[in-house]
Amino acid sequence: MERLPGFRDFYPEPLPTPDAWSADARTYIFDTWKAVARRYGFREYDGPPLETLELYIAKSGAEIVGQLYNFKDKGNREVALRPEMTPTLARMVAAHDRSYKKPIKWFAIPQLFRYERQQKGRLREHFQLNCDIFGETDPAADAELIALLIDSLRALKLTAEDFVIRLSSRDAWQQFFARRCSDEARAYEFYQIIDKLEREDQRESETRLAALGFSLAEVKEFIAAGVPTADLQRVLDNLAARGLGGFVKIDYNVIRGLAYYTGTVFEAFDKKGEFRAIAGGGRYNNLIKVISGGKVDLPALGFGMGDVVLLELLKSRGLLPKFRATVEAYVLIEDEALRGPSLQLVQRLREAGRTVEYSFTAMKPDKQFKRALELDAQWTARLEASGGGADLQVRLRNLRTREERLTTPGEAAGQLSGGTVEK
Amino acid sequence: MERLPGFRDFYPEPLPTPDAWSADARTYIFDTWKAVARRYGFREYDGPPLETLELYIAKSGAEIVGQLYNFKDKGNREVALRPEMTPTLARMVAAHDRSYKKPIKWFAIPQLFRYERQQKGRLREHFQLNCDIFGETDPAADAELIALLIDSLRALKLTAEDFVIRLSSRDAWQQFFARRCSDEARAYEFYQIIDKLEREDQRESETRLAALGFSLAEVKEFIAAGVPTADLQRVLDNLAARGLGGFVKIDYNVIRGLAYYTGTVFEAFDKKGEFRAIAGGGRYNNLIKVISGGKVDLPALGFGMGDVVLLELLKSRGLLPKFRATVEAYVLIEDEALRGPSLQLVQRLREAGRTVEYSFTAMKPDKQFKRALELDAQWTARLEASGGGADLQVRLRNLRTREERLTTPGEAAGQLSGGTVEK
Repeated sequence: MERLPGFRDFYPEPLPTPDAWSADARTYIFDTWKAVARRYGFREYDGPPLETLELYIAKSGAEIVGQLYNFKDKGNREVALRPEMTPTLARMVAAHDRSYKKPIKWFAIPQLFRYERQQKGRLREHFQLNCDIFGETDPAADAELIALLIDSLRALKLTAEDFVIRLSSRDAWQQFFARRCSDEARAYEFYQIIDKLEREDQRESETRLAALGFSLAEVKEFIAAGVPTADLQRVLDNLAARGLGGFVKIDYNVIRGLAYYTGTVFEAFDKKGEFRAIAGGGRYNNLIKVISGGKVDLPALGFGMGDVVLLELLKSRGLLPKFRATVEAYVLIEDEALRGPSLQLVQRLREAGRTVEYSFTAMKPDKQFKRALELDAQWTARLEASGGGADLQVRLRNLRTREERLTTPGEAAGQLSGGTVEK
Repeated sequence: MERLPGFRDFYPEPLPTPDAWSADARTYIFDTWKAVARRYGFREYDGPPLETLELYIAKSGAEIVGQLYNFKDKGNREVALRPEMTPTLARMVAAHDRSYKKPIKWFAIPQLFRYERQQKGRLREHFQLNCDIFGETDPAADAELIALLIDSLRALKLTAEDFVIRLSSRDAWQQFFARRCSDEARAYEFYQIIDKLEREDQRESETRLAALGFSLAEVKEFIAAGVPTADLQRVLDNLAARGLGGFVKIDYNVIRGLAYYTGTVFEAFDKKGEFRAIAGGGRYNNLIKVISGGKVDLPALGFGMGDVVLLELLKSRGLLPKFRATVEAYVLIEDEALRGPSLQLVQRLREAGRTVEYSFTAMKPDKQFKRALELDAQWTARLEASGGGADLQVRLRNLRTREERLTTPGEAAGQLSGGTVEK
């Protein structure tokens, strides 16, 4: 039996094959994301992996359906596995916006899905950190969000040498568009051309721009000048005050493909330009209104950062820690007559919060010791009869420093510390 | 826009409505599950939420399809949202069993799905802790797994007053079955009758048992006697040695509905009998062979514990902690001229790992203070000009003890400790 194409299994380390996906690396990234988001005062939420197809069409138009993992359920409902979190979040916030003080700062790590027929070997799911702020129009909120993005990457040991945030503005592009074209309905078409400018054939872009009244030269000049809007300048100043100015630059090549962005937009890229965007986001001040059918109107902004490009980047820079089970004690049972009290010792150590392993069945002492080494246990613990009496003592041995300690079963847990050698 | 029936949104606390699902409670349960599983040396894995329909039919027969959230994908594949984790796990282990030392001890917390047309208001998804052991036939492994189940519940502050593990054995029932009926092919039919015994009309059970050559009276006598098999006795002794004997009892009413169990089976119940089973599991020594098409043969056992019944139980016993954002410092910006250095202070505190909040925009001092109280911040931090110079100092105020400290921006993070009053 095979898994479906485009889906991943996550295995514990050490990995069975070099190309297997690591559950430990995933946990490391998720835990880091969560810790930084919480430091910024963001609260966790989650929604269903399956939503009505209507929710995505309302937000992105019917053309989105071609990329969705959508189907008809047994109750004849048109549904889709979520391709992004923002519509779910907008739905959730619109349903209960009055229950939460503004600004609302929330995060989630959803698994997202897409189904494109043609692209062989491409993943059909990934995980994404989503951080969003609701109820604040001031660019101070944009700066907070971008600072969080920067610190999420820094917490994974990436530096200003590794990545940069390219800042842009839909407002700036909207004003540029209005210079030549008064038909607002065509603005999105224009944004799409800008979005593809770096990837598409120059003559193709030239032709498509000309149809809207623009020359490629003036577009390029506008990008090259990169004059920040007043809002962008405030974002830059705010980040500079935090000491994060070195992580951002104005870059009007960025415009973000999605229709619903309204103000500041941004993308994080590796500086060597080897990978696709690490993260992207921006303001979407009108979306809540659309999703709520006009009932709720809240300014909003957010970003998403996927796990796949990030993991590639961390691997290529050698920034992933070496993952292993952290076994604090391996209890050696060399005398089967002592299995009962040894199990009691295992239980006591675990109740004190220690990670403990032992052999389920009788095994030669040297094999048990070998297993303790394989598991990279910090200590072995062995029960032994003391002096002449019936009392049992615990012999602890630190496998890194070779230090030995003799203690009682009741005090053993407290003794499993110190003497750890950094490896 | 509404969410799909049977799916849940998870909101941060305080909850918008009393019946909303809490993201914080979910995180509390998941984090506790993970911590205990790791203490037992279990390693995390995960697989796709979507698998081929074939995987589930191979395991459970075609009758399972009626309960599945299955559909045809855009590539015309018959697929299903996973109704349980065991087939995925068996597939993963069978694919790479040689890469891992035995016994393999793994856990996951998948979201699982089902689609039953008739049951209105019933959830179509839930989360489940799955813990499994591969490669060990000895009942010591069964005891280890049951000890982990017990300690997972104890870590959530449930006691022997709250729950009990009912232990049973497919072997015992198989031997009982063989007394009267030599047609092994009908054994599963017999197990199904036993499984429904506590819920179904007595005469109905009587009739169905008679068709297989049994009287209800002899079945009831067998259950009442509850004589442990040799394996079950070893499980009981092992758990008693750990001091966990008070959490288990033999109860042959338990047999587990699924076809693939082979030896020891068990279920956890609340002692008052108010809820459905909290958890259930057992041995499934033949499943890997089935899933791998005969290629891999590994003894296996595992349990699953869902989040829904558990949460109901914790709520009813008043065992859920009070959840709140833990804001360690609220930075007061009373003078807008100090916003820049205040942002720098926010950044410094967060870089030191502190959770920090502040107002994005100018706000009256009393409103900022009120917000700090609402957020239940432990400290406020305010920059102020020192003596006569340009240097800025930080005034820290502990909102619980009212203690004040004057320090430098560089040392403020280290000062945010002590004096915390337990609430």
